[in-house]
Amino acid sequence: MSAATAPATLADIVAALGGTLYGDGQTPIHRLAPLDSADAGSLAFVAQAGYAKQLASTLAACVILAPALAEQGRARGAVIVADDPYLYFARLTQWWAARARRPAAPGVHPSAVVEPGAQVDPSASIGALAYVGAGALIGAGAVVGPQCHIGAAAVVGAQSRLAAQVTLGQDCRVGLRAILHSGVVIGADGFGFAAAASGDAAHWEKIEQLGAVVIGDDVEIGANSCVDRGALDDTMIDDGVKLDNLVQVGHNVRIGAHCAMAGCVGIAGSARIGRHCTAGGGAIILGHLTLVDHVHISAATVVTRSILKPGRYSGLFPFDDNASWEKNAATLRQLYSLRERLRAVEKRS
Amino acid sequence: MSAATAPATLADIVAALGGTLYGDGQTPIHRLAPLDSADAGSLAFVAQAGYAKQLASTLAACVILAPALAEQGRARGAVIVADDPYLYFARLTQWWAARARRPAAPGVHPSAVVEPGAQVDPSASIGALAYVGAGALIGAGAVVGPQCHIGAAAVVGAQSRLAAQVTLGQDCRVGLRAILHSGVVIGADGFGFAAAASGDAAHWEKIEQLGAVVIGDDVEIGANSCVDRGALDDTMIDDGVKLDNLVQVGHNVRIGAHCAMAGCVGIAGSARIGRHCTAGGGAIILGHLTLVDHVHISAATVVTRSILKPGRYSGLFPFDDNASWEKNAATLRQLYSLRERLRAVEKRS
Amino acid sequence: MSAATAPATLADIVAALGGTLYGDGQTPIHRLAPLDSADAGSLAFVAQAGYAKQLASTLAACVILAPALAEQGRARGAVIVADDPYLYFARLTQWWAARARRPAAPGVHPSAVVEPGAQVDPSASIGALAYVGAGALIGAGAVVGPQCHIGAAAVVGAQSRLAAQVTLGQDCRVGLRAILHSGVVIGADGFGFAAAASGDAAHWEKIEQLGAVVIGDDVEIGANSCVDRGALDDTMIDDGVKLDNLVQVGHNVRIGAHCAMAGCVGIAGSARIGRHCTAGGGAIILGHLTLVDHVHISAATVVTRSILKPGRYSGLFPFDDNASWEKNAATLRQLYSLRERLRAVEKRS
Repeated sequence: MSAATAPATLADIVAALGGTLYGDGQTPIHRLAPLDSADAGSLAFVAQAGYAKQLASTLAACVILAPALAEQGRARGAVIVADDPYLYFARLTQWWAARARRPAAPGVHPSAVVEPGAQVDPSASIGALAYVGAGALIGAGAVVGPQCHIGAAAVVGAQSRLAAQVTLGQDCRVGLRAILHSGVVIGADGFGFAAAASGDAAHWEKIEQLGAVVIGDDVEIGANSCVDRGALDDTMIDDGVKLDNLVQVGHNVRIGAHCAMAGCVGIAGSARIGRHCTAGGGAIILGHLTLVDHVHISAATVVTRSILKPGRYSGLFPFDDNASWEKNAATLRQLYSLRERLRAVEKRS
Repeated sequence: MSAATAPATLADIVAALGGTLYGDGQTPIHRLAPLDSADAGSLAFVAQAGYAKQLASTLAACVILAPALAEQGRARGAVIVADDPYLYFARLTQWWAARARRPAAPGVHPSAVVEPGAQVDPSASIGALAYVGAGALIGAGAVVGPQCHIGAAAVVGAQSRLAAQVTLGQDCRVGLRAILHSGVVIGADGFGFAAAASGDAAHWEKIEQLGAVVIGDDVEIGANSCVDRGALDDTMIDDGVKLDNLVQVGHNVRIGAHCAMAGCVGIAGSARIGRHCTAGGGAIILGHLTLVDHVHISAATVVTRSILKPGRYSGLFPFDDNASWEKNAATLRQLYSLRERLRAVEKRS
Repeated sequence: MSAATAPATLADIVAALGGTLYGDGQTPIHRLAPLDSADAGSLAFVAQAGYAKQLASTLAACVILAPALAEQGRARGAVIVADDPYLYFARLTQWWAARARRPAAPGVHPSAVVEPGAQVDPSASIGALAYVGAGALIGAGAVVGPQCHIGAAAVVGAQSRLAAQVTLGQDCRVGLRAILHSGVVIGADGFGFAAAASGDAAHWEKIEQLGAVVIGDDVEIGANSCVDRGALDDTMIDDGVKLDNLVQVGHNVRIGAHCAMAGCVGIAGSARIGRHCTAGGGAIILGHLTLVDHVHISAATVVTRSILKPGRYSGLFPFDDNASWEKNAATLRQLYSLRERLRAVEKRS
């Protein structure tokens, strides 16, 4: 457990983040913890009413909860009442992390390689063994982690943080306050080929990818995710988009502001995703489709045509014990003929 | 938009790539662009008849199109007529990129580590902070990007290009003119274990992977894709194969020449894929299967048995609005019994 | 083929690994090979009775096989009889690799960056261009490959081996004898956000991830796989777990001892997986679920609810030729109404 850091008092917390404290402001908080593993030095929270039954048994020094649970909470001890306890908790983690995190030292580590013509703001940090290409721009307060690769003429916006081993390709641009996790690759070539010749001589002729990637402000991209550069125009990730790990974004895609895509999602080339969309883990959106704003795709669903109406869409095979699945799956391969047989029976009866 | 580079004239382009120009050869072209975002300095193309309706409205200085559209195109302005406009466009991007791209400087960057016994052709380029192991061979004109890792006794063929942060494992070989994108890992251990003991003492005993990976000529592998080394023999990727990002190729797989696999495809161990096969995004091919030449697997399809006849194969759950999906999916779990009930009704009626 | 190394005699092998040799102990073995590509210098094995028919035709100098096949094997030449030939073969590959593999030189490569306060055991090896953060601990005999990143206060246990380009995040801990392949990212932030505001102002507020990742002993993690740090508590991978390539493990997940997960598996946040479970390639386990011990998930299956009974579970759409699939998939979207129609017919008949 690395959540431990120097203790704060409940009074400190409420002073910084608001909410109404019922209890002793001088109570020291040593860690943030889930209800069930909280101890007497912990601050916990109840985000959903469903967890309210754990309230009685938690050992937490204090619990953040909604007004509706205030009375029940106060019966067991200190509480902080907040309108949206989950959002309060999110901001608390930020405040807590900012206290704990040692800021990266400004300046260029002596083992880094910065090509002539790169511009690194004096307040930015370039980590050990990082590479910054010619003409790249690293903004104020930005952190380029150890062993990162910043291609020629790429841009890292102010206050953005690149973890270790991130690759930002030539000409690609990242906005303000972005977070890119280790192994992210921005700006590899999109998958573009023209079929040449035919028969045994058939082969693929590369379409050079001449566009770049443009990433807005407040974007976060998870470990080992990829965003390809556009073929002619740029691939675009708009403000506030959050991508989890191992997500693939093809060339020429546009992802609208404040979308969130869970792990292992794949978005094929030239798809256009609206604002405030979400996709569950392993979902796939095929190429050249359009999704309007506020479309929500369930996990492992494959979107094969455009979606022009907001809402939730799903398409996954329900799992079962293997024997049941085998029987149903085998029957599924005869489904069309079953329908024809049903039609025949309907006519007869 | 980084597609912009020094302008070329239409005459330059036709001189280099052929085709028949109707229009002023001295027209300067500043960028290649899609029909809909083209401006008066742009050269665009119409690959498919379906886009022909955009011809009338594009602002492009000139449009590449097929003979069938020549008359319609000439009515609006300059055109280049080519038998296969998409292939023409592919070659144009190559020509354009070759003009724009600064070649990597030959030689070993002073920050790179090249172990004694490695052979680097004097015309090859070893980027900053790259590592080249003992006994490795880097061919003529090859580019090993910054922060790449070339294992001991690995081979990079002439004119191949490794982007930044590529890992090529010990003893693995890449042919001529290959392109490996950032984060690619060639030659990690295949996933091989023998079950040992049983009950609570059960555990996995590692099978050391003693083979390597052999990659042919003109292969391209996308960002963060993996090709594992063989258990005893080698994993083989034949000439002209194109793999997109986040593709997984297990140990002992053989992928025949000129296959193309889209993003997030997984190919399990010991599968044998014929020549000229394709797989859509997220498709999975299970282990120890054989696919003959010219098999095409749709996106997100799971291939669970060998395919001995060329053609297109599919198997994905059609997505729907969530409520409809829920009803259909729940019914699917009773499908076998529905068939039995239908049978009973058939007998009665 | 890189399986070749200095030859060993059959007597050497049996002396080291046991089993009963029938044949000349002085026979030199130059390589381990599959039955079908074995030559007169090869040692092969028959793991399953299904391969027994290849026994007659193999050119191998000697074959490892089970007692039941001993007579048949001896009829063709030398054999090693072992109770579990596949397990014997696994241990043989380990013995063979140990003979062939040059151990990494102890010490810190001069190009590596080791921050003050890191503790590197004198018998450990830190590769070229690697980074070891402040307060990190590298145990006895551990190998940190070239270009690896070890975050501050991270721990690499004794005898663990990190291939090139591995990222182990701040505070994360790896036990004894672990193997982490290239591109692995341990300890990126989990995907945690709270929804803030609503309508057009809606956005995601980051939940800082304050936990770490704790990995047990004898764990192996494949190339480009990711294990995220916990939100408050730690993500835990227990002893003996084997993860293949491109596997995603979300925050707060716990994977019990001796589980094995094939390539491209995704495990969403806070899932609890029991001991001795397996998942086939591309399977997805959704968040906050519990799987008891000895649960086996088939490839490409999506687990959407907890599984409280050991056994095999499946849920994938059976693939078919495209035309058949299209007809069946279209009908599937009417399945619920088909059931209603069947019900109506049943009532009438």
